[in-house]
Amino acid sequence: MTTRLSTADADFEARFSAFLVTKREASEEVDATVRDIITRVRTEGDAAVAEYTRRFDRFDIAKAGMRVERAEIEAAYEDADEDTLKALRLARERIEAHHRRQVPADLRYRDPLGVELGWRWTPIPAVGLYVPGGLASYPSSVLMNAVPAVVAGVERVAMAVPTPDGKLNPLVLVAADLAGVSEIFRIGGAQAIAAFAYGTETVSAVDKIVGPGNAYVAAAKRQVFGQVGIDMIAGPSEVLVVADGDNDPEWIAADLLAQAEHDTAAQSILMTDDADFADAVEAAVERQLKTLSRSKIAAASWRDFGAVVLVRSFEEVPGLVDRIAPEHLELATEEAENLLTRIRNAGAVFLGRHTPEAIGDYVGGSNHVLPTARSARFSSGLSVLDFVKRMSILRLEAEQLHALGPAAVALAKAEGLEAHGRSVSTRLNL
Amino acid sequence: MTTRLSTADADFEARFSAFLVTKREASEEVDATVRDIITRVRTEGDAAVAEYTRRFDRFDIAKAGMRVERAEIEAAYEDADEDTLKALRLARERIEAHHRRQVPADLRYRDPLGVELGWRWTPIPAVGLYVPGGLASYPSSVLMNAVPAVVAGVERVAMAVPTPDGKLNPLVLVAADLAGVSEIFRIGGAQAIAAFAYGTETVSAVDKIVGPGNAYVAAAKRQVFGQVGIDMIAGPSEVLVVADGDNDPEWIAADLLAQAEHDTAAQSILMTDDADFADAVEAAVERQLKTLSRSKIAAASWRDFGAVVLVRSFEEVPGLVDRIAPEHLELATEEAENLLTRIRNAGAVFLGRHTPEAIGDYVGGSNHVLPTARSARFSSGLSVLDFVKRMSILRLEAEQLHALGPAAVALAKAEGLEAHGRSVSTRLNL
Repeated sequence: MTTRLSTADADFEARFSAFLVTKREASEEVDATVRDIITRVRTEGDAAVAEYTRRFDRFDIAKAGMRVERAEIEAAYEDADEDTLKALRLARERIEAHHRRQVPADLRYRDPLGVELGWRWTPIPAVGLYVPGGLASYPSSVLMNAVPAVVAGVERVAMAVPTPDGKLNPLVLVAADLAGVSEIFRIGGAQAIAAFAYGTETVSAVDKIVGPGNAYVAAAKRQVFGQVGIDMIAGPSEVLVVADGDNDPEWIAADLLAQAEHDTAAQSILMTDDADFADAVEAAVERQLKTLSRSKIAAASWRDFGAVVLVRSFEEVPGLVDRIAPEHLELATEEAENLLTRIRNAGAVFLGRHTPEAIGDYVGGSNHVLPTARSARFSSGLSVLDFVKRMSILRLEAEQLHALGPAAVALAKAEGLEAHGRSVSTRLNL
Repeated sequence: MTTRLSTADADFEARFSAFLVTKREASEEVDATVRDIITRVRTEGDAAVAEYTRRFDRFDIAKAGMRVERAEIEAAYEDADEDTLKALRLARERIEAHHRRQVPADLRYRDPLGVELGWRWTPIPAVGLYVPGGLASYPSSVLMNAVPAVVAGVERVAMAVPTPDGKLNPLVLVAADLAGVSEIFRIGGAQAIAAFAYGTETVSAVDKIVGPGNAYVAAAKRQVFGQVGIDMIAGPSEVLVVADGDNDPEWIAADLLAQAEHDTAAQSILMTDDADFADAVEAAVERQLKTLSRSKIAAASWRDFGAVVLVRSFEEVPGLVDRIAPEHLELATEEAENLLTRIRNAGAVFLGRHTPEAIGDYVGGSNHVLPTARSARFSSGLSVLDFVKRMSILRLEAEQLHALGPAAVALAKAEGLEAHGRSVSTRLNL
């Protein structure tokens, strides 16, 4: 049964707190297995990658070639439906246009003492993009991960996608090509992450790895962190829909199901001040489930992790939203803008009644790679900033060194770092 | 013996590549121990923290109180030397002034279709700052970690610092107070990281943990990543000094030793086109070592990990610098600005002959928490951006939904996500 909570109930706080920490994924103990895979790929290179690919993907990359050839990409374009291609191109353009606004500015200035400070942003030289195989192999996610890297100026965007039993979604190749991915490898799992982190004969090492994956991929990313950069560890997706009673229950039910159909571990939450409306939405969910192709997945997600939170007033909404820190937040109310100013923790916010979250998944232009599992408390969706880094710049002349030097010498002394002090004082003839 | 490499040598590439992957730290296998500590703190709270503190720090926090009281902070101010206090205040002001320029701007705009896009930055609600105990307990690092958090608008900046045998550097308390730290706990190690990540009766959970620590702290941060955010995993410090023959060898030797005195695993590298100058610097290093209080540490670092790289021309410098990706880079040459434009991978750059790195450690205003161990390839020094996160914003009205909706429906269909498509089409009466 979908959970129903009401802020008017005496036990609300206890039930809401318990709801917040509900685990939606069984955490598999894969660390040791992953450690072995990484070690073998580090020491044996391509041979180890090929062996693991035979074992896990039942596919012989030694024979087929690890790298996807240009001809296969061309064939994928040929196969693609015209409407889909057009939509992918529109999505790419819109993502690019929006992400161009994220390119950070360099800075250089003199402070009142004449000290020059500043920074310079440069792209990460090489990035590895992981794309899951099978069901969750989404061309839209390829665009969302690769376009910001290309906009950032990353020279080499390599992609790894496993091909279980040799199968590969051709639209993934098309999306990669449209986005500007420079090389595509038919490999997956911890072995692909290890190849990206340490390099093999065929796969040159990258500097950062991004993209979602299963428990093995997530564990591998965690283990190679430091050797290379990684993005966030993605969990199952979630949406919180805040809706007043003036919404069409069918629309809101469709939004809840759009999240639920992703995964049985996905989570859809409705928050409203109108109990009758909540009932109408629940009834609409049940109705729509009957004709949905992924109804089994969506029904399980809604039953096990779905929730309806009744509030006494929309005044209660911002505090509750911040505690949930949802990946996706729909504010389907006239009060959307006002609420937004009082909310701090959410990955992406969709304002008003005509902004279903699915628009953001595909063609809004903003990124759909967003912090899950309450991590919007401390992290942001993927952006150009994830593909650049900043060199800090400092310049003093003799005059500024004379002004600031004595304080540096005093602090070096207080910290017992004599050579630090000397490197300053020797220039001051102290 | 300090390594000497020359780009003119036939074996340069092989030796330089090997030099780049030299391990400077023994990687301790502490994962299992750390996992146990985290589990016990999660389930037993304060009692487990107190027990580990007794065991590892030989200190009874149950008796002394886990939290540092106001009176102790006041006493620390009383004890502090006037020059040191003044220098700490100057450092705080300069760090604050520089970091204010890093506060990112919100954005909201309409694209040509009338779609509203944008983002809003908000501070991370609560941050935990880890400060090592004992030798590496530096007040300057407290400022460098805490001031950006306060500038970002973080409401709660909690600090954990272990007090081995009950000892605590009073200047650490002063720096914390000057920076605006809101609470200070006398705890350390993996148990402090676990308390920050999951909360105990005394320590409320935070949303992100920053600050350096030993192998146990680093392993604990890696394990709690996802539950909370973490900053980079800090390794031993390093400097690359690029200097032409017109420099004073004593100055450059002092800069190399300022890095070497940190830690036997620290690394100082001189890169020059002048072999005689290199000899003179090496001689000056040996001379200065004789009178340095931390000469044992500095000598071991210089002997084991120090290096002199001779280049045939400064044209070779940018490529080599990018491969080293040093934490600190001094460009002690008239060509500094020109070189800078061609360098991509470095944590912080110090330009000209009068900018010893130690100025940046203390009073330059820029941050001294910087990417080590070649991670400047993919990450940046600590900044205000590490203490804020971005909510992505999207708003369509009916008109924009009609314009973009069909493409979203097409992509949802291509990805087999029917409910995604429905959430759009139901609003279009398709």
